Amino acid sequence: MPKRSKISMSVIRRLPRYYRFLNQLDQDGVTRISSTELSARLGLTASQIRQDLNCFGGFGQQGYGYMVHQLAGEIGHILGVEHRYRTVIFGAGNIGHAIAAQMDFGELGFQLIGIFDNDPQKIGTVLHGIEVMDLVWFQDFYKKYVPEMAALCIPRSAIEETVSFLYGLGIRNYWNFSHYDISMKYPDAVVENVHLNDSLLTLCYEISHHDKAKKPVALLKHEK
Amino acid sequence: MPKRSKISMSVIRRLPRYYRFLNQLDQDGVTRISSTELSARLGLTASQIRQDLNCFGGFGQQGYGYMVHQLAGEIGHILGVEHRYRTVIFGAGNIGHAIAAQMDFGELGFQLIGIFDNDPQKIGTVLHGIEVMDLVWFQDFYKKYVPEMAALCIPRSAIEETVSFLYGLGIRNYWNFSHYDISMKYPDAVVENVHLNDSLLTLCYEISHHDKAKKPVALLKHEK
Repeated sequence: MPKRSKISMSVIRRLPRYYRFLNQLDQDGVTRISSTELSARLGLTASQIRQDLNCFGGFGQQGYGYMVHQLAGEIGHILGVEHRYRTVIFGAGNIGHAIAAQMDFGELGFQLIGIFDNDPQKIGTVLHGIEVMDLVWFQDFYKKYVPEMAALCIPRSAIEETVSFLYGLGIRNYWNFSHYDISMKYPDAVVENVHLNDSLLTLCYEISHHDKAKKPVALLKHEK
Repeated sequence: MPKRSKISMSVIRRLPRYYRFLNQLDQDGVTRISSTELSARLGLTASQIRQDLNCFGGFGQQGYGYMVHQLAGEIGHILGVEHRYRTVIFGAGNIGHAIAAQMDFGELGFQLIGIFDNDPQKIGTVLHGIEVMDLVWFQDFYKKYVPEMAALCIPRSAIEETVSFLYGLGIRNYWNFSHYDISMKYPDAVVENVHLNDSLLTLCYEISHHDKAKKPVALLKHEK
């Protein structure tokens, strides 16, 4: 088995896409796919896919291709989807609401067990079958249910204090929608960031520079 | 000026973070920051930051540091935040709702001018001051207002047809929350994906393997 600790983030970030794509094929009734076809449909080279999968021991046979259902299962296992990491959402605002309703946590390795907020308007409302609880009860909740992951959908103003509180209780895994760099202060925390502002700014850059590539006059005007 | 076309995505993806961080400093009244302090607070090396900024011509003076307000402005200009790309959200469900309410489009290079859905329950409702319009009117809307970017918050089942329709009209820029690989079919489209499922799966992988690193017995049990 290769050393997993050396697997690069770019390989890891491609795995969910393989997983999603193979599950879709599986649902569509495809049982086997050649590495050429898989690569064409994923927009990667066959050798790239082979290299990625080889990081985890390799799958598929030369000249035979990949068994779709089996490979999806193996990749799911590598990702750890059989886990049921107990998850709590902090913040029942727009984003908290969206992920509570939208995400199929159970299919993705997690189990949503609670939603907390400190806004009296939100406490007691029901999101996707779960009642929003008052943040003051979280310490008791933690002792009883020991949640393992916190999805952070709270405003910048409250985030630092909330993370300090959660980290103090023992939570080390965060799905972070706020603009607070958790890893800077807590280097042993496992953090996956979803920075929507950064994503939109990246798109803005891409559009701006895509336009410029086509319009040399505008390019010159903006240059120093 | 260096060739912008060669700037790697990893450099580009760090720019929004610099921008966010410098704006925060600016708001906090910080006028100047040494490259050492900037790097410490961003968790990067000073040389990494210098290299990144050098891709765009370089900023700051040796031994003097960076002028916060000016650098934020320069990076904002590189990102293109002075644009007002006319933007339409497709899908007024949970995610569409969240981004309409949450995102400060105007600060990030975009201008939200419409929200469309085909669900009679949603048409006519008002999200963040904008009335949700019936998708059947989009062609007329397009001719009149020529939106330049589409934020796609629609289910998998409708995405392929919608993108085909939008691309046919002339829209080439997409902020894509769906699990459809737009770039595969439309290689000239500018696409920024927000794949929440992939993000959660990546976190699952990270937690699983972080755990394993600490628990060698569990590691062996899961290995082949």
